[in-house]
Amino acid sequence: MYTIGIDLGGTNIAIAITKEGKILIKKSIPTFNKRDYKDIVKDMGDTSLALINEVGLSKDEIQSVGIGSTGLCDSNSGTIIYSSNLNFNNAPIREAFQKYLNVPVYIENDANVAAFGEYHYGAGKKYKDLVAITLGTGVGGGIILDGRLITGSFNGGGEIGHMVIEAKGEQCSCGRKGCWEAYSSATALIRDTKKAALQFPHSMINKLVENDLNKINGKTPFDAAELGDEIGKKVIKQYIEYLSIGMANIINIFQPEVIVISGGISNQRDKLIEPLKERISKKIYGGIKYFKTDIRVAELGDEAGVLGASILNIMHNS
Amino acid sequence: MYTIGIDLGGTNIAIAITKEGKILIKKSIPTFNKRDYKDIVKDMGDTSLALINEVGLSKDEIQSVGIGSTGLCDSNSGTIIYSSNLNFNNAPIREAFQKYLNVPVYIENDANVAAFGEYHYGAGKKYKDLVAITLGTGVGGGIILDGRLITGSFNGGGEIGHMVIEAKGEQCSCGRKGCWEAYSSATALIRDTKKAALQFPHSMINKLVENDLNKINGKTPFDAAELGDEIGKKVIKQYIEYLSIGMANIINIFQPEVIVISGGISNQRDKLIEPLKERISKKIYGGIKYFKTDIRVAELGDEAGVLGASILNIMHNS
Repeated sequence: MYTIGIDLGGTNIAIAITKEGKILIKKSIPTFNKRDYKDIVKDMGDTSLALINEVGLSKDEIQSVGIGSTGLCDSNSGTIIYSSNLNFNNAPIREAFQKYLNVPVYIENDANVAAFGEYHYGAGKKYKDLVAITLGTGVGGGIILDGRLITGSFNGGGEIGHMVIEAKGEQCSCGRKGCWEAYSSATALIRDTKKAALQFPHSMINKLVENDLNKINGKTPFDAAELGDEIGKKVIKQYIEYLSIGMANIINIFQPEVIVISGGISNQRDKLIEPLKERISKKIYGGIKYFKTDIRVAELGDEAGVLGASILNIMHNS
Repeated sequence: MYTIGIDLGGTNIAIAITKEGKILIKKSIPTFNKRDYKDIVKDMGDTSLALINEVGLSKDEIQSVGIGSTGLCDSNSGTIIYSSNLNFNNAPIREAFQKYLNVPVYIENDANVAAFGEYHYGAGKKYKDLVAITLGTGVGGGIILDGRLITGSFNGGGEIGHMVIEAKGEQCSCGRKGCWEAYSSATALIRDTKKAALQFPHSMINKLVENDLNKINGKTPFDAAELGDEIGKKVIKQYIEYLSIGMANIINIFQPEVIVISGGISNQRDKLIEPLKERISKKIYGGIKYFKTDIRVAELGDEAGVLGASILNIMHNS
């Protein structure tokens, strides 16, 4: 049997037909995100049917559909409760989608779904308990304990980026000050790199972007540090210190077998992971001998979303 | 059938025979904590047998024994891995205890066990997901999601008191700076009350303890505030602010149905809970409409330990 995985984002919708973790066919279409939910679901339904046809399957061979969506999702009712990226308020997505393909439809938040993908097919596949962290515009999280997604009693849990680690600290987009996200997102790293470049105009950072600070991205300070730039090194050191504070908190609370890191910054691989482990090891409750959690980079990239979505039936039927 | 619940602490050992959440008989004996584990287990075994006899039961009527112990416990092997209060290192408690009473013996950390007691018989009994917080010498935690204790992959999770909320902040006993425990334990409240009393020698705090600052306890600043003392009010306001930061973090991560607070400070009841709720409501990710977690005071007091221990068989057989 086959399943369909859909990754519904604010900009694009990726749709894939999968079998046992392998993608048979995948297509990406624009979301046009300010439309009525029914129009967006129509595009998802029509594209799903077209893909089924294209690979020579019949509708009966599709076992279930999983949707990972931006925003707050109620998996029980199959509703997207609220999304600021999509213009949705209590949108009954399952019901609307089943008009196109009448199979079980499962809906979860996209960060959770991507974590579920890594857990089953990616960097987490050897582990029982996993916390996934995405270092992107914000800091997203997905928590899986013994195969179960921890989504909170009211579908709004797992917001590990909004754990305050520095009371009265940097302003966070959520309104609070000092959230982990305000220190460890790519956005925060870019902010701090710009600040350093302004303060030290002769740094390598400025050279790398030809003095156009708007060209600074999450890679810039790592590149500057790699070239021996002291300012770049300082920015990275502080970034990793705050990242390690939040990760040590997560380990002290959950002690998962593995933390999987995704998002653009995770492309730095060992340049990120090795100093990060060193900093975390100083912060574990009980000392370094209790630091047993592996720290790994995600493996599935963009496909974590559709792969995780395609197996949401596993979670809901276990 | 009956079960035995044992609460093994650094000072006392409480032992109770229970049936369906009711204590039939309970006895407390001193731990004499620097002894060999075998001698301590002998006292636990002998006392258990004496209590069985005293209530007129036979050994065969005891279904299981649960032990909630201070320290790091491995529930799978039935071992107390390490305890700084007890002089234990990899002590095989289950095996030793079964020489006295050959029934299934379950061992868990005492904070987890007390949370389990409140979950089944106390303030958490109407809820599916619960986080228990003890405000005592430190800040202890127990996390129960869908009936399961979250103890971490290596038995060392649930250390929510050692979540840093103020990087570079107050020194914590664990070696890090800025842990939640360093702001929200009774120890921290007493420290801050003493500081305030030294700084403002004419405050009501000083009067209440007749200028002997060693008499300050967790109740003193609440009493001073109740009498209208501005210094007392300020101490309590700051204490509740930091407590609310950690609790909002817990809610953003877990979004449990209820948080149950125990420990001496929880005796302040509404004087603690009402302002605490008000402060938490400002800090919930997504705003006040996502603040759906109830905040309650524990109901079982000292009996949470033996009651929780007496039903550890439920958790391990579910």
